Amino acid sequence: SGEQGVWNVCDRSAGHSWPMTKERAYFEATTLRKHGGLSPDHVPQVYHFDRTMALIGMRYLEPPHIILSKGLVAGIQYPFLAEHMSDYMAKTLFFTSLLYHNTTEHRRAVTEFCGNVELCRLTEQVVFSDPYRVSTFNRWTSPYLDDDAKAVREDSALKLEIAELKSMFCERAQALIHGDLHTGSVMVTQDSTQVIDPEFSFYGPMGFDIGAYLGNLILAFFAQDGHAAEGNDRKEYKQWILRTIEQTWNMFSKRFIALWDQNKDGHGEAYLADIYNNTEVMQLVQENYMKNLFHDSLGFGAAKMIRRIVGVAHVEDFESIKEDEERAVCERKALEFGKLLLKERRKFKCIGEVVSAIQQQS
Amino acid sequence: SGEQGVWNVCDRSAGHSWPMTKERAYFEATTLRKHGGLSPDHVPQVYHFDRTMALIGMRYLEPPHIILSKGLVAGIQYPFLAEHMSDYMAKTLFFTSLLYHNTTEHRRAVTEFCGNVELCRLTEQVVFSDPYRVSTFNRWTSPYLDDDAKAVREDSALKLEIAELKSMFCERAQALIHGDLHTGSVMVTQDSTQVIDPEFSFYGPMGFDIGAYLGNLILAFFAQDGHAAEGNDRKEYKQWILRTIEQTWNMFSKRFIALWDQNKDGHGEAYLADIYNNTEVMQLVQENYMKNLFHDSLGFGAAKMIRRIVGVAHVEDFESIKEDEERAVCERKALEFGKLLLKERRKFKCIGEVVSAIQQQS
Repeated sequence: SGEQGVWNVCDRSAGHSWPMTKERAYFEATTLRKHGGLSPDHVPQVYHFDRTMALIGMRYLEPPHIILSKGLVAGIQYPFLAEHMSDYMAKTLFFTSLLYHNTTEHRRAVTEFCGNVELCRLTEQVVFSDPYRVSTFNRWTSPYLDDDAKAVREDSALKLEIAELKSMFCERAQALIHGDLHTGSVMVTQDSTQVIDPEFSFYGPMGFDIGAYLGNLILAFFAQDGHAAEGNDRKEYKQWILRTIEQTWNMFSKRFIALWDQNKDGHGEAYLADIYNNTEVMQLVQENYMKNLFHDSLGFGAAKMIRRIVGVAHVEDFESIKEDEERAVCERKALEFGKLLLKERRKFKCIGEVVSAIQQQS
Repeated sequence: SGEQGVWNVCDRSAGHSWPMTKERAYFEATTLRKHGGLSPDHVPQVYHFDRTMALIGMRYLEPPHIILSKGLVAGIQYPFLAEHMSDYMAKTLFFTSLLYHNTTEHRRAVTEFCGNVELCRLTEQVVFSDPYRVSTFNRWTSPYLDDDAKAVREDSALKLEIAELKSMFCERAQALIHGDLHTGSVMVTQDSTQVIDPEFSFYGPMGFDIGAYLGNLILAFFAQDGHAAEGNDRKEYKQWILRTIEQTWNMFSKRFIALWDQNKDGHGEAYLADIYNNTEVMQLVQENYMKNLFHDSLGFGAAKMIRRIVGVAHVEDFESIKEDEERAVCERKALEFGKLLLKERRKFKCIGEVVSAIQQQS
């Protein structure tokens, strides 16, 4: 299908009828090309971009490609999903960070993406602000979750944690992140995984991408009980989602470290080879780096879960559960887990412990 | 002296004959003006700036103004120093952070200062890299500190901490920092304190400024034994330095929080008034913010101490001690304290505990 393309004109809006700048197409096209160069198997090729018209000509993702979130609602297993997504995240994040960049390249790239400020502001509002205050944009499964939404707005410990994550989102230019890596930004078949829609991309904290993706898989897990039907209790599918979560982080972590080892004598300036010059110190700094990234990812993942239940834009995983009361039961479990994860994320030592905690909550 | 000025042409170099871009004059002038607007009593006025000629016309700091580091070597007490410097730091850091900026203003300002990449790279090398590896630029009081310098280069725990601080320096755009706020960048009289030379300024972590300044006061403390003479054992002066360190942080912290309280309903977007909407949650987030800033400051301060003993550019406090052996004794104590502070900074709960630890080391 390399010859067949699709014209993508920027006229989408953010769930609601939110006015958005046409300039976002520039950042979308630029990141599709950059990430596509780093992970060509998992990012559709851009054939042409017209900045004035905000028009992107890109690979047509032919059937049976469907949006991953729809596949998760349908209960379809994707055997290569963990491998593909961990590969995509490891490559795009590693190669746009100071582990690979020198600081001149890095500041130049950061500068360019500072221009995508409007979409960053939208994320700031919908992820880090609105769910924690009264906002006309917020909605939830009412009246069932009225008290739950109120509890979020009155939880000081939660507000403390979200403030730290918001500051990190606004201040820390760690890597060129996708910026909106939920399960609606991924198209899949049984053997293909394609990441689309990086219009929110900028130099931000890596954990925001990893967390968005893992958080949305956790939401998909908690929604499964609402999709159970006679003859399919979704128990096996729930286990597959949990395995996928565990494999995604573990494979990501392994690949990321492998890229670091392969490039440790390159021009990346975060960890210079003549300082980090023996196995002991390399292992120490790599473990510390991955521990911090893991906790960042859990925090951002939890923030994304909470906002999808009491904030403006919801996920199809829950929305497709027809009965309000049944949906509310699923959503409450997910919300409670999100709150726990946001507050207690630093206590988790590995993804296996997170998976166990998810099982306990369900 | 407002009518009298001085022409400052950018032909200085960094201690050594280090080639530096003339463009740094643009960032120096821009920051003098910005910081001067925020803290006019402690930043000399800029009358004229010519970018092509890299020429700054600014207030002439008339005698008896001298460089603070010279005053500290001479054993002169400055009764308003803590008050003035804490005021300067609180205002310049608060008003250029997301506690006061909205994110659009912030990203625009960050973008502009990304251009000062060459001077950031110089800091990265001399503060975060060279002291921890073999480098022709490094020097120390040899042979007395040969083993001490080697120990720094072989200390894995130290390298772990310096890596985290380097990443924060390179990635975190928290406020418009001076970037080189040592005691050589401050001119003083008994009642005037003027901060000069912000050529290294950019949007970076606040703790880098606070730490640079406090770290240099700690160096001045450890150098005092080398300046003791018959009839002046410097004991009282050492106590004055310690009081100044303690007052500087405590006054800074109080003023910073006061500015936050005064501006909490402004356009700053880090902590929105309708989320952080009661005394309990405001106190929680402010305590957490100041705790993190305190630990960042101690870390950067320690890094600056270490680099002044085993890195390229030294401080007059030690350099003016004529006897090598005597200088080495003072430097070793400062180095040991710097190492302790870098590794254990998160254990200190207040500046009083740091002052006690300094006294124990001396």
